[in-house]
Amino acid sequence: MADPGRLERLERRVRELEEELAREKRGRGAARARIDTMSPEVTDSNPYRCAERLRGSARVRRMGRRESRGSERRLMALKRMGIVKDYEKIRTFTVAVVGVGGVGSVTAEMLTRCGIGKLLLFDYDKVELANMNRLFFQPHQAGLSKVQAAEHTLRDINPDVQFEVHNYNITTLDNFEHFMDRISNGALEEGKPVDLVLSCVDNFEARMAINTACNELGQIWMESGVSENAVSGHIQLIIPGESACFACAPPLVVAANIDEKTLKREGVCAASLPTTMGVVAGMLVQNVLKYLLNFGTVSYYLGYNAMQDFFPTMSMKPNPQCSDHNCRKQQENYKKKEAARPKEEVIEKEEEIVHEDNDWGIELVSEISEEELKAASGPVPELPEGISVAYTIPDKEENLITGETVTESEESLEELMAKMRNM
Amino acid sequence: MADPGRLERLERRVRELEEELAREKRGRGAARARIDTMSPEVTDSNPYRCAERLRGSARVRRMGRRESRGSERRLMALKRMGIVKDYEKIRTFTVAVVGVGGVGSVTAEMLTRCGIGKLLLFDYDKVELANMNRLFFQPHQAGLSKVQAAEHTLRDINPDVQFEVHNYNITTLDNFEHFMDRISNGALEEGKPVDLVLSCVDNFEARMAINTACNELGQIWMESGVSENAVSGHIQLIIPGESACFACAPPLVVAANIDEKTLKREGVCAASLPTTMGVVAGMLVQNVLKYLLNFGTVSYYLGYNAMQDFFPTMSMKPNPQCSDHNCRKQQENYKKKEAARPKEEVIEKEEEIVHEDNDWGIELVSEISEEELKAASGPVPELPEGISVAYTIPDKEENLITGETVTESEESLEELMAKMRNM
Repeated sequence: MADPGRLERLERRVRELEEELAREKRGRGAARARIDTMSPEVTDSNPYRCAERLRGSARVRRMGRRESRGSERRLMALKRMGIVKDYEKIRTFTVAVVGVGGVGSVTAEMLTRCGIGKLLLFDYDKVELANMNRLFFQPHQAGLSKVQAAEHTLRDINPDVQFEVHNYNITTLDNFEHFMDRISNGALEEGKPVDLVLSCVDNFEARMAINTACNELGQIWMESGVSENAVSGHIQLIIPGESACFACAPPLVVAANIDEKTLKREGVCAASLPTTMGVVAGMLVQNVLKYLLNFGTVSYYLGYNAMQDFFPTMSMKPNPQCSDHNCRKQQENYKKKEAARPKEEVIEKEEEIVHEDNDWGIELVSEISEEELKAASGPVPELPEGISVAYTIPDKEENLITGETVTESEESLEELMAKMRNM
Repeated sequence: MADPGRLERLERRVRELEEELAREKRGRGAARARIDTMSPEVTDSNPYRCAERLRGSARVRRMGRRESRGSERRLMALKRMGIVKDYEKIRTFTVAVVGVGGVGSVTAEMLTRCGIGKLLLFDYDKVELANMNRLFFQPHQAGLSKVQAAEHTLRDINPDVQFEVHNYNITTLDNFEHFMDRISNGALEEGKPVDLVLSCVDNFEARMAINTACNELGQIWMESGVSENAVSGHIQLIIPGESACFACAPPLVVAANIDEKTLKREGVCAASLPTTMGVVAGMLVQNVLKYLLNFGTVSYYLGYNAMQDFFPTMSMKPNPQCSDHNCRKQQENYKKKEAARPKEEVIEKEEEIVHEDNDWGIELVSEISEEELKAASGPVPELPEGISVAYTIPDKEENLITGETVTESEESLEELMAKMRNM
């Protein structure tokens, strides 16, 4: 049956749809194209360039630095200012981020914006509206896997970064093996290990899995954590064999003068603040940049107490009786390597990190005087003021990747400390 | 002329367009609807709720806290954990953010995600691809005004927040008057002043404009800054009459053991790092939350030296010979108010902030011992180690809102300090 108005209605509908689609696409905008090298060109399309003004260029010329005009870029400026010798090197590094939640997502975004070479992301959670009180994820991403949502956003921000995402829980046996394989082989050049693993997870089991993997592989990693009450956090650099691993000593947190545990007890709702998570992610990625690009002082441990704005730093020796046999093996390797080095170098190294201040090998790097340390009270007299133990060491002697759930030790901290001292 | 295939082709085109539009909209997703009160309901659509798991709920019940099950929310958990007495109060506050760049945009995002009542944003810049090495803005926003792009993103994240944005430079005479009017009247309840002004600008002139406005209005504000080399920053709380204003003393920065000035010289390309900016924004908004919600210790000055992970804190008395007459007036008002208070209260207050440690009234709140202070070297012997002067005080006696550009003082720091001491 002929409908004379049908053609006209269809034509109008096509026009409407085309307009709506155009509006939709305009609103979202087009992502920028990839850039092969950190170009020194001063063009509007170079995201690494500096937003220059005419007056400024004139001044730069007056200063006899005309040749540098083209390379004025905000990140590359770190080089010109003498902070970093070779900023471009950032593009050669691969970093694995385990846990893409409140800290991990911001960590991945910072690394992406800094121009890291490749990012491996591991997480098995989905974005929920309950996550909106931290940074990064947006309400329209609710329901997507965190790694998928993160990859989409990060690729838009910087298409020069390579992404490899894994939507699984690293603590199950099969996934753990795959995780080990990817951190061993997943660098920019396939077959080479990643440069750094960052732990941004929110539970003890996942931290232990990362610790186990890194001890076995001799993989340098950094741990991060935010307390359950959201007002303290910390980052820690772990060099297997050289500094205390996660199983060497009870992981430490900065006390906020309130009872707290970093360990997230499942189902007990933890508080969270975008502020604390932003600060911890910033401290973490700053430490990553300093470590990878070789500038400033890399912190072995940096705490953050938001209640008092207190930021303790320290370093810890590994425990020769560590329950992880791979940690003990790495310690032996490190000792042999140190013994083989020319003497001056060894001394320099020792001054830098290994000290015998106390039973736990905790060395104060700054801010806390010997007097303050001696006056420090609390359940662990050897710990500097403001630092307390986050969680106790599990009972098991060997590593935890058995497919079972880790059971938290019921022993008191004092009992554990006494036991470890008598080991 | 009849075209028998035309109807069919149009129908196919409508289907294609509808599908593409649906894909486009799915990709972007729908923003969430507004929520009138911080509801305790545990539903998937409540962004303030905690992501609870069954096992957890059981545990919560075992702990005899069944009644709290519904109110387990990540932000509200701050209340349950004894950190904040009345978190919901956050929705009653209005904060003005001046400068929506590297620090200001993250500051606005944190406040939005925390559920602030109203945000006023001031900036006159456009988003550029050169901004992509800081957090927040995305490449597709290039060309939009920063306040417009920020409002769009922030409204999607949390439609419960009220936004008022001004795309202008606050330092010109007309705009300055409008700016004064909005911070005096732009609270949630029109006609009332905002609760806090945050300076996230990158130049001296804008900081001076905010200082002038806040001294005149007796408006409490916080200043923030990141050094030109991107590896240090600071935040500062300024209570007119009670703590040093921006004109009282040369604003201070944390030294990174390298020559630096926070003052952005126009055209000289400053380095910038998302890490430093994220840490400074986190410190700033944490201080805002502590100040507004009355928990923890609000810092008068908190510095960040990224090279050494050093975070000095201190506080400064106002300068009785401050060049800003409104600052001097506020000092008189404060003295009168303090004199009228019961004695114990005055003492408590004095212990908290006003000390006479040195000519500059700089008080060490923590971390730096008296010995370290005495041993501190550098051009300004009264300043604690690690703190140096960011920029010098301009020559002019009166405030700077004259429509002219501020000229930087050519006097050496030593000359200025000597002059001020002899005032």
